[in-house]
Amino acid sequence: MAKAAVLGASGYLGGELLRILSDHPTLELAAAASRSQAGKTLGDVAPNLERYRDLVIRPDLGGVDADVAFLSQGAGEAMAVVPSLLERGIRVVDLGPDYRLPDPAEYERVYGRRHTDPEHLGEAAYGLPELFGDAVRTARLVANPGCFPTATLLALAPLAAAGEIRGPVVVDAKTGSSGAGAQPTANAHHPEAALTVLPYGAPEHRHAPEMTAALGRLGAGPVPITFVPHLVPLVRGILCSIYASPPAGADAGRWTDLYEARYRTSPFVRVGGVPRLPWALGTNRCYLSVQSVGGSPVVFSAIDNLGKGGAAQAVQNANVMLGLDESAGLARAGFGV
Amino acid sequence: MAKAAVLGASGYLGGELLRILSDHPTLELAAAASRSQAGKTLGDVAPNLERYRDLVIRPDLGGVDADVAFLSQGAGEAMAVVPSLLERGIRVVDLGPDYRLPDPAEYERVYGRRHTDPEHLGEAAYGLPELFGDAVRTARLVANPGCFPTATLLALAPLAAAGEIRGPVVVDAKTGSSGAGAQPTANAHHPEAALTVLPYGAPEHRHAPEMTAALGRLGAGPVPITFVPHLVPLVRGILCSIYASPPAGADAGRWTDLYEARYRTSPFVRVGGVPRLPWALGTNRCYLSVQSVGGSPVVFSAIDNLGKGGAAQAVQNANVMLGLDESAGLARAGFGV
Amino acid sequence: MAKAAVLGASGYLGGELLRILSDHPTLELAAAASRSQAGKTLGDVAPNLERYRDLVIRPDLGGVDADVAFLSQGAGEAMAVVPSLLERGIRVVDLGPDYRLPDPAEYERVYGRRHTDPEHLGEAAYGLPELFGDAVRTARLVANPGCFPTATLLALAPLAAAGEIRGPVVVDAKTGSSGAGAQPTANAHHPEAALTVLPYGAPEHRHAPEMTAALGRLGAGPVPITFVPHLVPLVRGILCSIYASPPAGADAGRWTDLYEARYRTSPFVRVGGVPRLPWALGTNRCYLSVQSVGGSPVVFSAIDNLGKGGAAQAVQNANVMLGLDESAGLARAGFGV
Amino acid sequence: MAKAAVLGASGYLGGELLRILSDHPTLELAAAASRSQAGKTLGDVAPNLERYRDLVIRPDLGGVDADVAFLSQGAGEAMAVVPSLLERGIRVVDLGPDYRLPDPAEYERVYGRRHTDPEHLGEAAYGLPELFGDAVRTARLVANPGCFPTATLLALAPLAAAGEIRGPVVVDAKTGSSGAGAQPTANAHHPEAALTVLPYGAPEHRHAPEMTAALGRLGAGPVPITFVPHLVPLVRGILCSIYASPPAGADAGRWTDLYEARYRTSPFVRVGGVPRLPWALGTNRCYLSVQSVGGSPVVFSAIDNLGKGGAAQAVQNANVMLGLDESAGLARAGFGV
Repeated sequence: MAKAAVLGASGYLGGELLRILSDHPTLELAAAASRSQAGKTLGDVAPNLERYRDLVIRPDLGGVDADVAFLSQGAGEAMAVVPSLLERGIRVVDLGPDYRLPDPAEYERVYGRRHTDPEHLGEAAYGLPELFGDAVRTARLVANPGCFPTATLLALAPLAAAGEIRGPVVVDAKTGSSGAGAQPTANAHHPEAALTVLPYGAPEHRHAPEMTAALGRLGAGPVPITFVPHLVPLVRGILCSIYASPPAGADAGRWTDLYEARYRTSPFVRVGGVPRLPWALGTNRCYLSVQSVGGSPVVFSAIDNLGKGGAAQAVQNANVMLGLDESAGLARAGFGV
Repeated sequence: MAKAAVLGASGYLGGELLRILSDHPTLELAAAASRSQAGKTLGDVAPNLERYRDLVIRPDLGGVDADVAFLSQGAGEAMAVVPSLLERGIRVVDLGPDYRLPDPAEYERVYGRRHTDPEHLGEAAYGLPELFGDAVRTARLVANPGCFPTATLLALAPLAAAGEIRGPVVVDAKTGSSGAGAQPTANAHHPEAALTVLPYGAPEHRHAPEMTAALGRLGAGPVPITFVPHLVPLVRGILCSIYASPPAGADAGRWTDLYEARYRTSPFVRVGGVPRLPWALGTNRCYLSVQSVGGSPVVFSAIDNLGKGGAAQAVQNANVMLGLDESAGLARAGFGV
Repeated sequence: MAKAAVLGASGYLGGELLRILSDHPTLELAAAASRSQAGKTLGDVAPNLERYRDLVIRPDLGGVDADVAFLSQGAGEAMAVVPSLLERGIRVVDLGPDYRLPDPAEYERVYGRRHTDPEHLGEAAYGLPELFGDAVRTARLVANPGCFPTATLLALAPLAAAGEIRGPVVVDAKTGSSGAGAQPTANAHHPEAALTVLPYGAPEHRHAPEMTAALGRLGAGPVPITFVPHLVPLVRGILCSIYASPPAGADAGRWTDLYEARYRTSPFVRVGGVPRLPWALGTNRCYLSVQSVGGSPVVFSAIDNLGKGGAAQAVQNANVMLGLDESAGLARAGFGV
Repeated sequence: MAKAAVLGASGYLGGELLRILSDHPTLELAAAASRSQAGKTLGDVAPNLERYRDLVIRPDLGGVDADVAFLSQGAGEAMAVVPSLLERGIRVVDLGPDYRLPDPAEYERVYGRRHTDPEHLGEAAYGLPELFGDAVRTARLVANPGCFPTATLLALAPLAAAGEIRGPVVVDAKTGSSGAGAQPTANAHHPEAALTVLPYGAPEHRHAPEMTAALGRLGAGPVPITFVPHLVPLVRGILCSIYASPPAGADAGRWTDLYEARYRTSPFVRVGGVPRLPWALGTNRCYLSVQSVGGSPVVFSAIDNLGKGGAAQAVQNANVMLGLDESAGLARAGFGV
């Protein structure tokens, strides 16, 4: 059994990590830490959990022995602890944004703070194993992608690799409210959120530069992306509707083949008809459908923002980094309804 | 045109008052006050409103000339301003709890604060016009009932008056999240509220003593009430399911007749089959259905908590107090869907 | 009082028509017809209605005397009755699709049936009064636009008129389930619809050719539109997110001014910040917001699909045709929450 | 590996059975049958499933070799096949109602059809393992309880066994729409269901006699139950609010202890504070909370209607019947959010 530690156990992503680790056959939860919940047991704060219910939450990861640490915190928190964790020989999967943008100047522009650990920024792998698996396999530090970039990049990669995209791409995302985090806010107050569809993040959501950076890593030429997320009355789930412009002479008939070929060996990506979000709930799966509307490709991409868009993908990254079965703890099926 | 003032314009009940007054033919909005929004226009804070959009919000009602003031604030606020308003000759409809319980000692027990205006407490009418219309007609001060007592008392009055209730009554209420108010809270955070039914308020919700007090006013003998509200994933609307025990030899066949006779002349209470909440949305209507389950009466009562359960009933009370048409501004139909 | 008749009274659009007419000061409901509900009263089928509750539903409009008839039926139904209604001197507002596409061949392609009344197709006005008010004013026959075209065309018109659109336009629409109609279907079955966002209509939704035709009427050059509607877990309401490409040198700073200037005198179109759907519920209003995302215009357009997207706009059209106050019966405010 | 067969694979309970069996370590899916989906693969009809995706659906269970058959069909279907399955040595868990009521005359009264297999009716165990585990352990035929009886009986058993109930019990249940089944209906049509709370089943829901019969099996004296289910805008989940009357001198302080003692060794029943439905989603767990409201016990009981209220409990019954680990395939944690 490898050992895992979780820092940021009281947020929604942290809770989902604990839920997945409760079901993991070869990765054991050695420690859970949360400043706000320290001293309570996991059973106190998460009555849904059974295994590990008597584990006492610690204030931090000081002195913890683990093979991998999952960091689930806001911007600026991870880079304060990553150097010491790595020094202690603990691999890190960071679910926050600190190591997602390769350029520290870009990080400062987007997140409004100076990057304090540029050294490790350079070595961090971008943790989308379907696209960057080789880097993850050998990494000590993985930047777990944002939820919207995960859904978008999996949806764009096959077309981009085949040169079937020209010109601007529109990414219209619809997300459930759990993406807003556990802290009550005006936009996620039930009376405000339950009866509307709320576009937010304009003029530039922080996940847009992350998408652009990752497309660059994929070797796609510069593709301008217009990205607008919308809060919809769901709790979990993201559906991205992605509108691209094809080059002259594109052959729409082969698009689905491109996707199936690209993901044939991926245990977590499924290509088919229009997806339903319950299929993805609580899972590490991404459901893709590519269609031709007026000769242009429209791709629908469905994930659980806390699953493939967060905690489940983090566990997949840890599995890959630690040489475990990539699907360990992640094989359960989503809901039919 | 009579003149109205609203204190507490920025909450949900205050907003609904402004919406109804925007459509009132004979009651003009003379002033709107809110400490937190003072200086802004109504159009700034409520883009849904057209009439009065340029009205500037005041910090309080000092110096305002009005025939009636609607007070929409938390416990303890109304009793601080009611004496001076009455002295200035302004009638008051208080949507808060300060004047609902006739006994100051009971108020102190339930709300945890001493009542500072027992003098006017004695003269306040309990503003359920269908049951206490005579008192409202001549009142200077009306205590607008709580949302749950409104739905419950309209549902129990015909049975109680006919002596068809013996023993304890169970009131199981289901309410939308707007009843929690405009301030974000953990229970009304969308990710927490959207996928569950949350009982709250046990062991004693503050509306239970109000129900008991009002049943006493109706001359019903002491009826023990077990009242449990549940937050359901709706924004507006309350459905109360009310379970009573009949006396020996009760005739279930006449129950619906009792209700129809009682409310035949009420423009706002409808008796019939199982109600749907959209019918009541935005209106001053209460839909009642009485059924026999195993020989015991079960009454379903549906209102909009912000409408008949709050702002619309407050306007009805003002209409009655001021000698206006009781239905003025309140005639519009609810939704079919 | 002018007289109105409604054919198709039992659907959701028909029900909303009856609700609005119940509140109309100068247009009286003379007859309501529905094959499936004939013989019942309006109160039987629509307990939310008060006025007209004793009106008996007729099977059709034969022998009815009215100034205007609202037809709310599926494709192919209106063109069977419009010729005789016009001959009897009754103006018609058709809420179905039969008279929306000016070209009978296009109608046949899109709706899969031959147009049997090409004569009146030529004279029908496209009933978006904010854009085609002159034609509506003098029309005997108005084709009430589809819900999605209404939201889209109001959102595109100012940019299109100013030459600020080049290249393709993406219209990503999110709609509540009432647009699916009153008949239960698999996609609108609650367990299937409540926890997902469902794109539908690809490769070509029937409202796309209607948008293209109407843009042509506006004199905009040929603008390719990629339109994908999505079913979201709402009952009423449409939010369209519209992504356009500006010409070189476009000045994003003037876009909001263009919108405000265009709709300054329109009582039903409001320009401002990001809209909330409750503001539009039950109303004839459209809320628009135009923003620059990476230098390209993104327009958000919010309506009630049964209101401005259907029944309320139909009443607005009737008001204009009959020379009544354009806002009669349509002035009430939407919800704040 | 033991072998399982599922009859009725295309309904919601059938789908949930397949989902759980996809994750079961010691019970293998040998056959899935559905008249309406015969010939398709499981992957065709249930894209959420991975394991068994190539299994071809059969029209019936003729010729199938299995250790246990799960029957998930409407009233009258199971009793037509149970005799032959038992004769073939196949144990049966029936998720339908045919074997729940011990008295064939009562079955006929409630379900409106004659019971055609009274012989096996007598030997069927009532499959609530926490209360009737001994009978399940030795049974060839188990009647899986209805969803509402499951939640109610687990909630009442400790009080009933301790003699802490006198007089009538009110069971006010709130259920998600998946309980209505996969076939679209008017009540579960999204526009009708999403904005209301709909009481149904009065004057007598079919699960009421089942509760009474099971309480009799528990040896409780005759307890009159008033049971009213309400459809709320959820997909999965039942919360029962149960109001009982205590005997004179009841000691509310020991109620929680009674529950904890009763379920201390049950892996699937948790006693604590007010439950949240997401904890139960997709699981076999029941969360109970008992409180004193005005001296009377109020019990809240939360389950997933498709989980502990259906498919998961069916698998638990099969595990017990076959001598497998009772928790096999059922250990996964529910959601925190």
